[in-house]
Amino acid sequence: MTAGAIDVLGIGNAIVDVIARADEGFLAEQGLVKGAMALIDSDRADRLYRVMGPGIESSGGSAGNTMAGIASLGGNGAYVGKVRDDGLGEVFRHDMRAAGVQFDTPAAAQGPATARCLILVTPDGQRTMNTYLGASVELGPEDIDDDLVRAAQITYLEGYLFDPPRAKRAFRKAAAVAHAAGRKVALSLSDAFCVERHRDDFLDLVSEVDILFANEAEICSLYRTGDFHAAVAAVRGKVAVAALTRSAHGSVVLSGSEEYSVAAAPVSQVVDSTGAGDLYAGGFLFGLTRGLSLPICGEIGSRAAAEIIGHFGARPEVELKALVTGLGLG
Amino acid sequence: MTAGAIDVLGIGNAIVDVIARADEGFLAEQGLVKGAMALIDSDRADRLYRVMGPGIESSGGSAGNTMAGIASLGGNGAYVGKVRDDGLGEVFRHDMRAAGVQFDTPAAAQGPATARCLILVTPDGQRTMNTYLGASVELGPEDIDDDLVRAAQITYLEGYLFDPPRAKRAFRKAAAVAHAAGRKVALSLSDAFCVERHRDDFLDLVSEVDILFANEAEICSLYRTGDFHAAVAAVRGKVAVAALTRSAHGSVVLSGSEEYSVAAAPVSQVVDSTGAGDLYAGGFLFGLTRGLSLPICGEIGSRAAAEIIGHFGARPEVELKALVTGLGLG
Repeated sequence: MTAGAIDVLGIGNAIVDVIARADEGFLAEQGLVKGAMALIDSDRADRLYRVMGPGIESSGGSAGNTMAGIASLGGNGAYVGKVRDDGLGEVFRHDMRAAGVQFDTPAAAQGPATARCLILVTPDGQRTMNTYLGASVELGPEDIDDDLVRAAQITYLEGYLFDPPRAKRAFRKAAAVAHAAGRKVALSLSDAFCVERHRDDFLDLVSEVDILFANEAEICSLYRTGDFHAAVAAVRGKVAVAALTRSAHGSVVLSGSEEYSVAAAPVSQVVDSTGAGDLYAGGFLFGLTRGLSLPICGEIGSRAAAEIIGHFGARPEVELKALVTGLGLG
Repeated sequence: MTAGAIDVLGIGNAIVDVIARADEGFLAEQGLVKGAMALIDSDRADRLYRVMGPGIESSGGSAGNTMAGIASLGGNGAYVGKVRDDGLGEVFRHDMRAAGVQFDTPAAAQGPATARCLILVTPDGQRTMNTYLGASVELGPEDIDDDLVRAAQITYLEGYLFDPPRAKRAFRKAAAVAHAAGRKVALSLSDAFCVERHRDDFLDLVSEVDILFANEAEICSLYRTGDFHAAVAAVRGKVAVAALTRSAHGSVVLSGSEEYSVAAAPVSQVVDSTGAGDLYAGGFLFGLTRGLSLPICGEIGSRAAAEIIGHFGARPEVELKALVTGLGLG
């Protein structure tokens, strides 16, 4: 199925999050790097699950969260990702469609189970992620519907797609089809360790995409620097638009010689930062599809991120549309 | 396995909650009675799930929530309930054990899937529940370990157990074993419609149990009256201790000729009332096992309920122990 006009098509690893509280001691005991995303195998996932606290399950996946955010803002979105035809796969598909996002990628009928991310949230609201990629490794170029890509103003790709080998080919195909149709391509660098794993690929990609999202750790990792300003200088001019997020310090948006600082939106209580970057990207992309100025795109991103930080889970709990009234969206 | 000394053994339908926001219009469209628990079959569960909004999954079940609350207060608890050996069953077992509750009832190896409750939360924080009993109908008297019942100061039974026919026999067996061992039995009336379905049984049970929990609608339904004070008069003297909850109006605790009014604990934002009654019972029972006075038991119940109302899901998000300091728990 191909919709007429799509604002954003998101492509990513389709993952269900299992979210539990944990203290710093537990992270240390388990040898986990706080704030990072680690890839784990099925055995390790079972072992970690056994020792972690009571959880809640919520659909996740970086680009999946972004698309749920765009739909919640009133945007017309579609998603491509691979689940297994199992219980969690059904949950993921339900949540995506119920959010109003078109999602028709067929589920895998065999192979590993639907991907899970075991997320440990420390008292400071930081999240540490442990991903079992499961069925998402089955995503391949055959899952990319060229017409769907051509119908989308922007195709948004998460850097995590470089972890499963066939998904990387799906990524490259989607980007090529989008550009051939005169459409825009956006990329998120996803995670500093993901950048470590794929730095050379990502350095090339930055020059190929139109819109880049990264947080401070990711952009610093990309350019092997500990200094954010050096990273800003390095990326300037390499991509049409770069939106660089800095947690409580807001974001910096670069375009040619322009540079905008966008404040973080107020958060009454930092509960769980999972999905903050994804929702920032969702708000920013939504603003772009509505032709808004870059600082306003950043402001929409900040407000969407603030909503997500205030509760467990990486999908909006309220209609984000209501949080962006008065920002020129009419 | 039987632990040495158990504060409370909870027996109930083992259910995973799927929680989504909905407006009043959706409830009307779907013919749902706001605030109630309706039993639905597998087809209806599939149909309702397809049209409801994005959800989060969280272990639930009335007695399951109560036991998680008791463990969170520092109590030593055990649980009996039936899941299937499927994904949601694994989630339920994990969450119970990770909360610190002993849970060894074998999973069903065949038959229906683990029970699910589709919970729709309206903007006023009220929850409307639709339960597919699934594997919980497989619970039977063979699942009651007599030694476990004898080891528990209090055996807590949810009224919902009267819905699956074999569970009712498990209920009666557990109550008989507890009383034969000189232990106490507590009952929750669960839901006004559940009371309608089993009124004669429940009228008999009230005289047989030692501790009764009911909310205003349930106790009024039991005695076929619209007047809470008439219901209080009717139940007075029939049970050693009755704790009757009235949402924001707190609770009334009766014992012989004694009557105590307990205020509701403050809630900064009513997000989702799911589990409020279950957690009140948990706090109250925990207080009883610690030999505290009835008004203090009610106060612990109120504080545990208030924590649950402030977020989605019916399991505590913080350690409840921290919320009851200074109440004579040393």
